[in-house]
Amino acid sequence: MPLFDVPEDDLFGPHNLPYGVFSPAGSAERTVGVRLGDHVLDAGAAALALGSPYAELLARPSLNPLLAAGRTAWSDVRRALTAWVTVPSHRETLAPLVHPLDSVTLHLPFEVADYVDFYASENHARNVGRIFRPDAADSLTPNWKHLPIGYHGRSGTVVVSGTDVVRPGGQRTAPAGAAPVFGPSARLDIEAEVGFVVGVPSAMGTPVPLSGFRDHVFGLCLLNDWSARDIQAWEYVPLGPFLGKSFATSVSAWITPLDALDEARVAPPGRTHPLLPYLDDADEEPGGYDLRISVALNGHVVSEPPFSTMYWTAAQQLAHMTVNGASLRTGDLYGSGTVSGPAEHQRGSLLELTWNGRDALELPDGKRTYLEDGDVVTMTAWAPGAGGVRVGLGEVTGRVVAERVDAERLQD
Amino acid sequence: MPLFDVPEDDLFGPHNLPYGVFSPAGSAERTVGVRLGDHVLDAGAAALALGSPYAELLARPSLNPLLAAGRTAWSDVRRALTAWVTVPSHRETLAPLVHPLDSVTLHLPFEVADYVDFYASENHARNVGRIFRPDAADSLTPNWKHLPIGYHGRSGTVVVSGTDVVRPGGQRTAPAGAAPVFGPSARLDIEAEVGFVVGVPSAMGTPVPLSGFRDHVFGLCLLNDWSARDIQAWEYVPLGPFLGKSFATSVSAWITPLDALDEARVAPPGRTHPLLPYLDDADEEPGGYDLRISVALNGHVVSEPPFSTMYWTAAQQLAHMTVNGASLRTGDLYGSGTVSGPAEHQRGSLLELTWNGRDALELPDGKRTYLEDGDVVTMTAWAPGAGGVRVGLGEVTGRVVAERVDAERLQD
Repeated sequence: MPLFDVPEDDLFGPHNLPYGVFSPAGSAERTVGVRLGDHVLDAGAAALALGSPYAELLARPSLNPLLAAGRTAWSDVRRALTAWVTVPSHRETLAPLVHPLDSVTLHLPFEVADYVDFYASENHARNVGRIFRPDAADSLTPNWKHLPIGYHGRSGTVVVSGTDVVRPGGQRTAPAGAAPVFGPSARLDIEAEVGFVVGVPSAMGTPVPLSGFRDHVFGLCLLNDWSARDIQAWEYVPLGPFLGKSFATSVSAWITPLDALDEARVAPPGRTHPLLPYLDDADEEPGGYDLRISVALNGHVVSEPPFSTMYWTAAQQLAHMTVNGASLRTGDLYGSGTVSGPAEHQRGSLLELTWNGRDALELPDGKRTYLEDGDVVTMTAWAPGAGGVRVGLGEVTGRVVAERVDAERLQD
Repeated sequence: MPLFDVPEDDLFGPHNLPYGVFSPAGSAERTVGVRLGDHVLDAGAAALALGSPYAELLARPSLNPLLAAGRTAWSDVRRALTAWVTVPSHRETLAPLVHPLDSVTLHLPFEVADYVDFYASENHARNVGRIFRPDAADSLTPNWKHLPIGYHGRSGTVVVSGTDVVRPGGQRTAPAGAAPVFGPSARLDIEAEVGFVVGVPSAMGTPVPLSGFRDHVFGLCLLNDWSARDIQAWEYVPLGPFLGKSFATSVSAWITPLDALDEARVAPPGRTHPLLPYLDDADEEPGGYDLRISVALNGHVVSEPPFSTMYWTAAQQLAHMTVNGASLRTGDLYGSGTVSGPAEHQRGSLLELTWNGRDALELPDGKRTYLEDGDVVTMTAWAPGAGGVRVGLGEVTGRVVAERVDAERLQD
C-alpha cells in the first residue's frame, strides 16, 4: 500500500491523510496539502495534474471550500486522494508534487468563523471546582451534568501551531485583596483540548440534532487553549472568561477528517443523570473518540490525557450549541474543553498538574508551576486505526515569549 | 445646504450621512449607500459618476473596504460625500442615484469578525445585582469598578434590523428546583445597547491605548442584544452567557461615523475608584457620547435610556479588550452593554423595567412582562449636533416569531 517511502506503521500513512494549507519553500502562495509521513502532497496540483474535478476544492488557499462541500464530497475527495497516493501508476506524476514537511510553511488551514470552547471533562471540572471552591458541597456546578457548558472565545486570535505566544498583560488581584495590580500574567497555563471544525452551515432557527454531527462536522485537530489563570480569576465573575483566554488559542496545522477516525469511536462514560431528549445519545452511534494525547513541556512529557474519558461528546456539544436556533457557519471551531483523565499524570492543565502552583513539576531543566518565558509546549496524539495501525493527529506547539509592551507606556 | 428635499432639521440630513449596504428595488446586487432623509444615495455609483477615486471603497458589496481604509480615508470620503449632496451642480448627476428608503432592501452592512458584549452601565449592573443576588452586600461584583466586564458573543448570528427573531428553545430550571425542563424561552428579553464597529486592525501582542480609539473605531450603531433570561440563569455559572444570547443580536442597518458625532461627546460620570493607567481617561478627550435612546414595544415607548450615563466608555472598552495583546480585525463589533439610566423609565431591558416580571408594563394592547410572539421591538436614538440640529442613528427593529421546531422532534 504505502508509496512515497512511508513506512507501513507511520502515523501519517495513506490511512490518515489529514488536510492542511501550506506554502512550498520560497513561495508565499498558499494551497491545500495532504500530509503523508514527513512529506506534504500538493493536493491541488495533484488534482490538476490528474485531471480531477476536485481541483476546484483543493487548488485553493484555504480549506473552506472543501469544508463547505459537505459529507458526500468529503468522502469522494478522500477516496480519490487515497487512490492517488496508493496506486503505483500515479507515482511518476505525483512525485514532483510532494514536498518535505520541514521545507514548507504551514498556515492556519481555514478561516475561523465563530470559536466556542466547552468544559466537557468531568475530571477537569471536578479538579477546578476543588481548587477554586474548596468549601462547596459539590465540586461541580448544578448544571454540569445536564448540559455541556460552553462559552464563545475570540476567533481572531486562533493561530496555527508554531506561532509564538506573547505573555499577556492584565489585571489581577493583589495578594492583600486590595485594588488590582497590572502586569504580565504570572500564572500562564495551557489547556490540552481537541478542536472540532464545522464544514456545513445550518439555518438560523433550526437546531441540529445529535444525528446531524457527521453531516456538519468535517474533522478535528489538537487545540491549546492558552490561559492566564490570574487574569481569569479576577475577571470571570459574572460573565465568564475574557482576557484570560482571548490573547491566543493554538490549533494544529492538520485537520484530521472524521472518516480517518472510524476505528477510534467509543462510547462515552456512563451517564449518571438522565438527559433531555436533544442530548440523549443512548441510542446513537458511539459519540466518543479514543484519542491518546501527550503534552510535553520543553520536550518532557508531563501529561497523557485520554480523550475517551470526556463526559460530553462533540455531537452533544453541536446539538446543544444549536438548540436555541443559533446557526452554524463554515469554519466554526469548537474546543472540547480541557481533557483530563482520572489519574494525576492525565491532567490537561498546569493548574491541575501543580494544583494551582502548590506542587511544582520536577523537570530535567528545573521546577515548573506555571509557564516561564521561552517554554515550549507541544501536544501530540494518536488514535487506534484499522489493522492496528495508529492514526496520528498533527501536533500543536507554541513557545512563550516575553510581553513586548511596558505597562507604563500604555498611559501614553 | 440641504439638497434632495431634505428638511433643514431632518435627523438624517447632510450633517449625518450614515453608511449602509442596500439593494435597489428589483436587484439582488449589494452596494454601499448613504442615508439622506428618507432616501438612500448609491454612494458607489455616485463616486463612479463623479470620477471619484473613492469608488474603490464605495462601489463594494460591504463596508469592510471602507472600514479597513483608516481614519484619513474616512474623513476624506465623508468630506467628498458632504460636497456631493450639498453642492447644487451635482444635483443633476446624482438625482437618478437616489432611491426612496422604503423601496430598497437593507443588508447587514459589514462582515462581523469578533463580537464582544460589555456590561458598562452602573445602573444596569446594580439593578441586575439587586434582582439576582438580593442578599449580596454589594450589588456590584468586586471587579466592576476596576475593569469594563465583557465577554465574547456569537458573530454568526448578528443580524440586520428588520430580521425576525425566532424564540429560542432551551433548558431552564423547573420551579421546584429539580431537573431542568426543555421548551421555548418564557422570559425573552431585549437589551438596548450601542455597538461600536472596528475598522483598522491591530497586531497581536500590541495593546491599543485609550488614545487609539478614533484610529481604530469607525463608527457606531444601535444594537439589540436579545436575551433569554430563563436559559441564561440556568447556564451562566461558571463560564458566562452562551445560549441565552447566541440565538440573535440585531444591529441597525446604518453605521454612523464617529465624525458625525463630535458635538455629542461628553465626559463620562465621575469615577468613584482610581483606575489603572491603561484605563485612566482623566486626561483624555471626553470619551462618552450623549445619545438619547428610545425603546418602543409594538409602537409604544417603554424606555428612554441615556447613553451619557455609561460608566465605561467605548475607548476604555477598546483599551481593555486589547490590553492582553488580543488583536483587532476589520469588522470587529463590540456592544456597550445594556444602557440604563438612573430613573425607572430609563431602564434598557424588560428584566429591569418589570423587575424580573414582578411589575408588568401596562401597554395600550395589554400587559407585558417578557416578550410574546408577534411583539415588535424598535430602538431609535438621536444625538445633539452642530447648530442644534439633531443627528439620528438608524433604528434597530425586530419581531419575535414562534419557535419553529417541536422539542420532541429533536430526539430524531
